[in-house]
Formats: sequence, C-alpha cells, structure tokens
Amino acid sequence: MLFAMAYININNDLPGIVGLMHYRPETAKPLNELAEILLRGPSTLSSAEREMIASHVSYRNECHFCHSCHGAAAAHHIDGDLDLLRDIKNNFKTTSISAKLRALLNIAEKVQILGNKVTPDDIDAAKDEGATDLEIHDTVLIAAAFCMYNRYVDGLGTWAPVEDAAYDETGRMLAHEGYGNSITD
Amino acid sequence: MLFAMAYININNDLPGIVGLMHYRPETAKPLNELAEILLRGPSTLSSAEREMIASHVSYRNECHFCHSCHGAAAAHHIDGDLDLLRDIKNNFKTTSISAKLRALLNIAEKVQILGNKVTPDDIDAAKDEGATDLEIHDTVLIAAAFCMYNRYVDGLGTWAPVEDAAYDETGRMLAHEGYGNSITD
Repeated sequence: MLFAMAYININNDLPGIVGLMHYRPETAKPLNELAEILLRGPSTLSSAEREMIASHVSYRNECHFCHSCHGAAAAHHIDGDLDLLRDIKNNFKTTSISAKLRALLNIAEKVQILGNKVTPDDIDAAKDEGATDLEIHDTVLIAAAFCMYNRYVDGLGTWAPVEDAAYDETGRMLAHEGYGNSITD
Repeated sequence: MLFAMAYININNDLPGIVGLMHYRPETAKPLNELAEILLRGPSTLSSAEREMIASHVSYRNECHFCHSCHGAAAAHHIDGDLDLLRDIKNNFKTTSISAKLRALLNIAEKVQILGNKVTPDDIDAAKDEGATDLEIHDTVLIAAAFCMYNRYVDGLGTWAPVEDAAYDETGRMLAHEGYGNSITD
C-alpha cells in the first residue's frame, strides 16, 4: 500500500511529526528526548507555561499541527480549555498571565523571528520580573526547538487534522504521559 | 569568578553553543546526538554535502558562530579551503556543485524562511536530480535543526571569534571526531 500523506513516501498515514518519527526513528529519539527535557523535565517553570511558549511559537510559525498539539497539552496541564491559549496567540501582551510569563513570551517571539533579534533589554525585562538565568535559557531553547519542529513538519508537507477536537487526546497524552513513547504508541 | 560572555551567566567563557552545552548538559546530549546522526551518520549524502547545507542555512540565519564552524567542517571533509563555501553562500545557484546538491540547497533555503515555503515543485526538482526520499527528509531536518541551533546561539547573546582561522581546528574536530564529545573536550 502506498501512502501519499506527505511530500515523501513515509510508509504510514500518521499526521504531522508522528508520521515522520515513525519513518526515521534514529532522529526521532533525540527529538523526543529534547522535547521531554524541555517541556516535562525538572524546572521552576510549570509544564503548562512551557507548553504555552511552545504553542505560541508554533502559531507564529504557522504550524497548525504543532500549535494545536501543544495548545491542547497546555490546556490539559491546567485542566482548562483553549481560551487562554487563544488569548495568548491573539495578543499575549494583554492576556491575564503572570508578568514573568509575559516577559518570557516576549523573548520567545524575538527568537521566533531570529536569534539576534533578542536584545539585552528583553533579557533585563524578564530578570526584572523574577526570571532566572536557567528559565531564560530554557525559554530561548524551547522557542528555538519549535522553530525546528515546525519547519520539519511543514517543510515535508505532512497532513494535519483541522479541528481543535482532534488534538484533545494527543494533548492529554503529551501532558500526562510525555514524549518518550510517542513513536511506539 | 563571574563570566559575562552571554546574556546569562553560563559559568564559563567558551564560545557559541559550546559554552551553552557546558552550562546545560541535559539538553546538550540530545542536541549533540541529533547533529551526529544528521551530519555524520550513515547516509547517501556525504558529510561534506550535509555540512554545506548546515553552514549555508546558518549563514542565512546570520549566525556567525555556526556558519563558520560548519563551513570549516565541510572544508575539512573535502580537504579543501573555504572558497567553495563562500561561493555557495554568495549564490549557490551558480556555484560548481552537483545538480542534486543545488536542488537540496534550494529546499533548505525555503525551510530556513518557513516550513510552508517548500512547494511540491521544489521537491519534484530534487527528485528529478536523483534525490531520494530519505535525502530530502534529512535535508529538511538538517535545515530545520540549524534554525534551532542558530537561534539558541544568538538568542542567548553568546560570543564568537570573528576571523575564519579561529574555526579551523573546531572544523577539523567536528569533521573527524564528531559531535559526541563536544561538551567534554
């Protein structure tokens, strides 16, 4: 059976990065490990906050699959719905979130454009709101990593469900079971 | 002793991604594994070709540290100098390289802009020049990965030597010893 669900024949009909990870398990391993550490590993940032950064950057990169999956994961971390995520994506500067998260989202937005767009003032603003060096480090790397995942998913023309509801179960799994088993599930 | 070599205190004075990897070894591990597989793992693309793609994308992302390191690595793989790399960066469409590599660089340039800029015509052009599905997959993921590494390096304001000569030994090590030991060297 021949599948034509992406620009290349990946021998499966799984959506987004899931299909690519089944096609190339060697690269899937470090890609999953990185996501697990950054989004669910020990951190003074909550997993909800980190998934919000991931989802927001993915939205700015126009990656429907990633922003939907990680928005759903963020919602599951806070037992909430997608309204907060939509607010952040529409304009995080006016959304009801902590001043620290707002300053970190500002850094993430700069990283999404290009690394050298981040200024010392952006960093100082986050530190003024209590962000630690490690929190700033991880915010930059989360934003940078999603500039990779998003390009990987869209650059190979993978398919993605349109409606939000299709991502709810994936979001629950990512939030509560993690990234370690995503290519064998 | 306090170092101020980046936007955050990384407790060392090492340049570019090397200093960040010493600061955060947990994330360094999958970052190095991914680079090792993509640039030096088994492939029908030569390591020189893959380092050329990495260096070219890094140049387009204005990341001096990364484009210099990976340009030097590419040169070491072919026992050559940096002239070919400079030609590629100036205009790969007229450089004397294989038609297949030219078509893959075209895909990498689209990925550098955004994943959804890659078109079916870009993919077909690479296939017409003999590129396999796996070569196209790895080209997209190399380009995407360097959109991450570049943003990580510049988003945290790391320092980098200016002159090409400073990258020669690093390029030799990356080409011939690889990415596995880069945080413990």
